[in-house]
Amino acid sequence: MTTMTYPLLSKIDQPADLRHLSRSELRQLATELREYLLQSVSRTGGHLSSNLGTVELTIALHHVFQTPHDRLVWDVGHQTYPHKILTGRRDRMPTLRQFGGMSGFPRRDESEYDTFGTAHSSTSISAALGMALGAQLRGEARKAVAIIGDGAMTAGMAFEALNNAGVPHAGKMPNLLVVLNDNDMSISPPVGALNRHLARLMSGRFYTAARESAKQVLKNAPPLFELAKRLEEHAKGMVVPGTIFEEFGFNYVGPIDGHDLDSLIPTLENLRELEGPQFLHVVTKKGYGYKLAEADPIAYHGPGKFDPAVGLVKPVPVEPPKPTFTQVFGQWLCDMAAADSRLVGITPAMREGSGMVEFHQKYPGRYFDVGIAEQHAVTFAGGLACEGLKPVVAIYSTFLQRAYDQLIHDVALQNLPVVFALDRAGIVGADGATHMGAFDIAFVRCVPNMSMLTPADEAECRQALSAAYAQNHPVAVRYPRGAGAGVPVPTDLTPMPWGKGEVRRQAAPAAGQRVAILAFGTLLYPALQAGEALDATVANMRFVKPLDVELVKQLAAEHDLIVAVEEGCVQGGAGSAVAEALAAAGIAKPVLMLGLPDEFVEHGEPARLLSLCGLDAAGIEQAVRTRLAATDRA
Amino acid sequence: MTTMTYPLLSKIDQPADLRHLSRSELRQLATELREYLLQSVSRTGGHLSSNLGTVELTIALHHVFQTPHDRLVWDVGHQTYPHKILTGRRDRMPTLRQFGGMSGFPRRDESEYDTFGTAHSSTSISAALGMALGAQLRGEARKAVAIIGDGAMTAGMAFEALNNAGVPHAGKMPNLLVVLNDNDMSISPPVGALNRHLARLMSGRFYTAARESAKQVLKNAPPLFELAKRLEEHAKGMVVPGTIFEEFGFNYVGPIDGHDLDSLIPTLENLRELEGPQFLHVVTKKGYGYKLAEADPIAYHGPGKFDPAVGLVKPVPVEPPKPTFTQVFGQWLCDMAAADSRLVGITPAMREGSGMVEFHQKYPGRYFDVGIAEQHAVTFAGGLACEGLKPVVAIYSTFLQRAYDQLIHDVALQNLPVVFALDRAGIVGADGATHMGAFDIAFVRCVPNMSMLTPADEAECRQALSAAYAQNHPVAVRYPRGAGAGVPVPTDLTPMPWGKGEVRRQAAPAAGQRVAILAFGTLLYPALQAGEALDATVANMRFVKPLDVELVKQLAAEHDLIVAVEEGCVQGGAGSAVAEALAAAGIAKPVLMLGLPDEFVEHGEPARLLSLCGLDAAGIEQAVRTRLAATDRA
Repeated sequence: MTTMTYPLLSKIDQPADLRHLSRSELRQLATELREYLLQSVSRTGGHLSSNLGTVELTIALHHVFQTPHDRLVWDVGHQTYPHKILTGRRDRMPTLRQFGGMSGFPRRDESEYDTFGTAHSSTSISAALGMALGAQLRGEARKAVAIIGDGAMTAGMAFEALNNAGVPHAGKMPNLLVVLNDNDMSISPPVGALNRHLARLMSGRFYTAARESAKQVLKNAPPLFELAKRLEEHAKGMVVPGTIFEEFGFNYVGPIDGHDLDSLIPTLENLRELEGPQFLHVVTKKGYGYKLAEADPIAYHGPGKFDPAVGLVKPVPVEPPKPTFTQVFGQWLCDMAAADSRLVGITPAMREGSGMVEFHQKYPGRYFDVGIAEQHAVTFAGGLACEGLKPVVAIYSTFLQRAYDQLIHDVALQNLPVVFALDRAGIVGADGATHMGAFDIAFVRCVPNMSMLTPADEAECRQALSAAYAQNHPVAVRYPRGAGAGVPVPTDLTPMPWGKGEVRRQAAPAAGQRVAILAFGTLLYPALQAGEALDATVANMRFVKPLDVELVKQLAAEHDLIVAVEEGCVQGGAGSAVAEALAAAGIAKPVLMLGLPDEFVEHGEPARLLSLCGLDAAGIEQAVRTRLAATDRA
Repeated sequence: MTTMTYPLLSKIDQPADLRHLSRSELRQLATELREYLLQSVSRTGGHLSSNLGTVELTIALHHVFQTPHDRLVWDVGHQTYPHKILTGRRDRMPTLRQFGGMSGFPRRDESEYDTFGTAHSSTSISAALGMALGAQLRGEARKAVAIIGDGAMTAGMAFEALNNAGVPHAGKMPNLLVVLNDNDMSISPPVGALNRHLARLMSGRFYTAARESAKQVLKNAPPLFELAKRLEEHAKGMVVPGTIFEEFGFNYVGPIDGHDLDSLIPTLENLRELEGPQFLHVVTKKGYGYKLAEADPIAYHGPGKFDPAVGLVKPVPVEPPKPTFTQVFGQWLCDMAAADSRLVGITPAMREGSGMVEFHQKYPGRYFDVGIAEQHAVTFAGGLACEGLKPVVAIYSTFLQRAYDQLIHDVALQNLPVVFALDRAGIVGADGATHMGAFDIAFVRCVPNMSMLTPADEAECRQALSAAYAQNHPVAVRYPRGAGAGVPVPTDLTPMPWGKGEVRRQAAPAAGQRVAILAFGTLLYPALQAGEALDATVANMRFVKPLDVELVKQLAAEHDLIVAVEEGCVQGGAGSAVAEALAAAGIAKPVLMLGLPDEFVEHGEPARLLSLCGLDAAGIEQAVRTRLAATDRA
């Protein structure tokens, strides 16, 4: 950045630097910050709309609160670019979400200003309440602030935290401030009753002012009015609450304009001085200040690189692009819905990301966006299944972690036929560790009645979904982010044969058939390449559960080394299932398990990360050669 | 039951039989049903207080609704004994919660009147909403009713469902009735802001009547009042809502007396005829009609057998009883809290079950009951850990499933030092399949930064907790329901050596050292017995993660067969971890994995269930002999 273009911003190396600025300087800082954001994100890609919407709020919070002594917890955290820029990371913006670069989310190991790592939604109030009560226990005067969006507010976890925050602990109300950043938008359009409640509050935007004038009127009211009013309040046993948040014991203030520093700063200063749980309702506009993003905040939610002067342009593909797995799922969903009127589709607020836009348009009555509410999504699907419908729950692998008990207790235990379409399984790329779909094979396959399928490519993804749908028990189908090998996708709804893997490459008999690679999922393709180089047998296993035990036994009988390959954690994963099958069959055979390591994989380009994990063709080949060499030495 | 004692009840074989009864006959039925319940549960043990509280509500619901055509979903489900008795299972009450007998919870495979299996709390609204919308989609006129307690209402999942239910779907509001059974009591005393809200509603018990008289007053108010009132309403953009449930789009009715059939039946009849989401607030008393239970509903929540005329009597132990693992944990918690002021204890509404009563009394400021809110509990603990406190989350294994994403995303990813004390790990007995702690080893050990300890007895439980507490990363310690081997528990806080197992029995060299049994957890003791019979080496592994890989390698080198034993699922479990370690070390050795089967284990006496799973000494011995025989044949 040039100091010419950003005369004020270039001098802000930490929040302390902006605390002495005048109100008009702060306004200038907001303008510079917004411009810097736009220039920066348009070069790297990343979240844009949400960050343009939090420029003034971020400035106001760091201006009013003594960060990092006071704690800011940003819910979801993809709106923290302004926060990062103002807390000493301005010059790292060009590395955003890139391998070795700055994370797109707050991280405790990145800055002392990032008090709590977030990315999955609706955790901030719980964490900030823990910090508030922690400070209270330690006798420290410290404020804890959770900044949460209206979408994130629909998750039950946020309500659990509100419910817990609105009561005294050890005789003292927690010093917690919840800032509701209400932009009437999660990633998908908002749903649910809470949203309607917020809309009502917003329609009374000038509520505070209006109430004042109402009071003026009332001042002259005869005593009878006062009597009646008190009588009614008494009859109801309470003072009529203004909002749902007051019901939870919070002091509700708002809504106020979240782009107006002259509203934000004095209000936050007042709230800072109050004891007990405070709730500030701030209204912002996603994409604020960049007309194109204001007009289409969904398109600018997480754009790639673009020219700010031009905006997003649809790339003209030279050749037809390969469909993503998400698109394959979306097409399958529409086709199966056409074939079977019992099909219903459920998403926890991820219509776009899960490829359900077309399904929603074609079958609005059979489409359910339940909000950011994974737990409810799964049990709701169970209820639908009880009535003879065939629910398909589209959910990212990492978000199914939110509904694990519901999968076990409400679906699997009752053996209800629910299909779980697990997108973003494995490495996810720029979103990084928080969004890894690494654990699903381990946590799903241990659950009785569940099946788990790992299609190898687009064609198999469709066949796997059809196979899952045909079952009378719960089945998960996992597939990764992005595109696959690019094989033609069939248009029919023929299922893949249940529980059967296939040998895709047979080692030449002359080679001694030393190595059999058992590939689960899309790593079949690099495994095939490695198999060529090694002259190894390569099997496309397709099913983690039920595992094709006969195929495993046959391959074990014919080869000296079994190599399991999967884009998931090794611990408890598909390779582990192979080892269990061998153990159960009484077969002792060397097994090499290749998968994601026992650590959180950071952000970066997926191919690069896979390579670093040794899960590209070269890595698989190398791992096998190393093992063979060790065996030969022994 | 004798028809003499229960002249009416003995004729009710299905709900249709009670629909033609007069109001006074229904009252008589309630009296008989309550008496039958008391007599029956006092003979079998089981849940009492909650069932005595739902007698009239159950009769009214089956009287008004056309069950099973209309769907009743009972949240938690331990209050469904009256429902079971009235739906053709009266004579099975003596088999309650016993092996092969009737479940203590609703089960779809037990009766068509059990529309949804429940046990974990707060699932009913989601399931009933699924049923309501399922009926709507199928064009069936069917009512769906969720009956949920005030405790269960604090879980976020219930709010997710309310938020989703209060909006139209395909232009139509769902025909859902939520009955809030408000007895001001979950199992532990109630906590949280919602409870306070309910209390306020109850203090305005005669709210409806009083509002009427207020209207009388207002009738004579001058126009100015009306103007002011309308002005205020307009200013706020809404009509002031009476309750939090109205905010969610429900038509709120109540509170009404849940023991008064003359209130219940007409109200339910009215609600049955209304379209859209309805909310009925019913006030009941746990233990109603049995004075001893009314006076102490916690003691009579889930009593063992007793004489109804006398009530519960404390058994006089002939010898000092063995402490349960829960008690060992509770004592450790108090002792460690005395030694380290940073310790804080967190429970999601399970103070009694988790052994935290004494800790609460001694350290009220460091005790946090967050309500039935497992997700919040874990992230809240993360927030406390960020402030330098040392949180111990006491949670049943089965309920940690509710907070899996929080464990991964909020604690493990940030590597925060939180101790998870997992009670009820393994087989749980009378509660059955819904409460199995079968999956924790599999779903915890795949998470990076997590450790998982499996102490073998009471002494090791204390040492394991101390070892977990001393770490600077998250650790889970799992222990089963009930008592252990009965070894003396140390009084100090010495940790067990980190990551080290121990050989507890060495096979005689003459025996050829064929078999090494690697025991994880309390099954060490039957494993030792089996080891005696087999002359096998027996190791107490203690750690699933970090696994004592050196010990595994040593035992593999010295023996022909490795046998892993655990009270957890085989899939992805501790035996699987052993297989992974062998595979990583390039060792091919036969492994026999003994653990819980890939099916849900039903209710019954724990020792019997363990035996059925082949996890007693005889079962372990037999499994090893069978494997050895197969190997010898081959």
